[in-house]
Amino acid sequence: MNFADRLAEAVRTKHSALVVGLDPVFPKLPDVLKAGVDPGDREAVAEVVKAYQRHVIEAVAPYAAAVKPQIAFYEQLGPAGLVAYEEAAHLAQDAGLLVIGDIKRGDIGSTASAYAAAHLPLADAVTVNPYLGTDSIDPFLKRCDETDGGLFVLVRTSNPSAADLQDRLVDGAPLHERVAQLVHRWGADLVGGCGYSSVGAVAGATAPEHLARLRQLMPRAWFLLPGVGAQGGRAADVAAAFGRDGLGAVVNSSRGILYAYGDTATVDWIDAVVAAARDLRDQLRQVSAQAPA
Amino acid sequence: MNFADRLAEAVRTKHSALVVGLDPVFPKLPDVLKAGVDPGDREAVAEVVKAYQRHVIEAVAPYAAAVKPQIAFYEQLGPAGLVAYEEAAHLAQDAGLLVIGDIKRGDIGSTASAYAAAHLPLADAVTVNPYLGTDSIDPFLKRCDETDGGLFVLVRTSNPSAADLQDRLVDGAPLHERVAQLVHRWGADLVGGCGYSSVGAVAGATAPEHLARLRQLMPRAWFLLPGVGAQGGRAADVAAAFGRDGLGAVVNSSRGILYAYGDTATVDWIDAVVAAARDLRDQLRQVSAQAPA
Repeated sequence: MNFADRLAEAVRTKHSALVVGLDPVFPKLPDVLKAGVDPGDREAVAEVVKAYQRHVIEAVAPYAAAVKPQIAFYEQLGPAGLVAYEEAAHLAQDAGLLVIGDIKRGDIGSTASAYAAAHLPLADAVTVNPYLGTDSIDPFLKRCDETDGGLFVLVRTSNPSAADLQDRLVDGAPLHERVAQLVHRWGADLVGGCGYSSVGAVAGATAPEHLARLRQLMPRAWFLLPGVGAQGGRAADVAAAFGRDGLGAVVNSSRGILYAYGDTATVDWIDAVVAAARDLRDQLRQVSAQAPA
Repeated sequence: MNFADRLAEAVRTKHSALVVGLDPVFPKLPDVLKAGVDPGDREAVAEVVKAYQRHVIEAVAPYAAAVKPQIAFYEQLGPAGLVAYEEAAHLAQDAGLLVIGDIKRGDIGSTASAYAAAHLPLADAVTVNPYLGTDSIDPFLKRCDETDGGLFVLVRTSNPSAADLQDRLVDGAPLHERVAQLVHRWGADLVGGCGYSSVGAVAGATAPEHLARLRQLMPRAWFLLPGVGAQGGRAADVAAAFGRDGLGAVVNSSRGILYAYGDTATVDWIDAVVAAARDLRDQLRQVSAQAPA
């Protein structure tokens, strides 16, 4: 089934627009899991990450539509980290979660083909960077078509410096709106029965003032909204990203959920993770119900 | 020693502005190395890649200043591919070559820090994508300062669709010129004794009409010029990228050198690789000598 439809089904079934980001950062992992482990031993750290994510994925599965492993934190652990990344994807899929690989790749066509083959269908969808233009996206579109995969193209990111390039005016409109137009076009052939396309957009929850316009420019795109929680975005601000059907947007929180137990981990750490996931899911239920009529 | 100075030394010592790109693509590898190997067996293919790159790195070391492994082709092989990527970096460094990891990463600050730690100093320098702006580059700058590493920021890429975003006019100038101004600023604190900065720029040899202006905007940047060979760029076109000292630019060729032996590999394949590397090195000697006075 088309990725857009699979995401719609997951959101409806779970009654949740929540995506839990997996950003495994060793210093923040619970003491109970990492006692005695040398932070410089990549293989040993990767084993701790595996144990951690196993707990987290199992715990958040009832509350989230998807998880979003951030591959940078796995790459940092070398080949053993990549094993842990692949394990995260498989565990999540086995737990009934969709997997959005946060890889933000972008390269010339021949290279993009290799990235697409590397990451789809290992993940159900991946994030991609649009700076190289259409021929850097085409191999991913082809792969999505072949594997029922999905894309989330960076449109307006959640970081403070996003404005440096993405908000620069091109023909009187911010560059990110030009990207949004491309995303709309790139997704035209991958629209599912739900009315949304498997080609979605990343739009930061930290700059909610852009969301209504982006929704207008990309009426069929699933929005992936990062930046809620640790980056300062608030669930209440992102209503404009949802479609009239209350679908069309999923909201990611990584550190706000993963490390909800604070600096000093106790044996109850997983309860804090669950509570944070459930709480954000509940907030998002209210927000998606407020989508413009 | 600062990366810019190490690159200057390599170019002077080798009398070569050549970078050999490592894009290991299984179907193109010599028959003699891959006979009997199942293309779907990632571990087995990674072993073939290791053998292949060992030959190539040894063979091109006298003619090239650096190699540029393209990580996508390694990622496609999963964790075993990453082992091969790391081995490529180590082998090249042992052979007296600098290593430019072609990773094109770009992400928010906390994630960029993880990428920087993952890839520097494993590679001597890496390519990065500027779409997320200054705070996505800062962690790489910090890491370069700590490890004597280098960056090549994508400014104007070599693919046909580069124009989609990079050539759009912002305040009357193409977006890539705005990126060039940022690159100049980002590199200000990492200028070496050679007069160039460890923060360089990727500028495609396929669009040489931009090079003179980019050199003007980034007088202290090392230029990494991809696109010569398989992508259609010609060595003779890139003279404007070099500084008055004949330094300041290195030219990458991947497929044009790696697969110079053509579709049907024979036992003499490595001779064809060497001949292609030597030939392009010689062409670049002439070009760099023509740098504007």
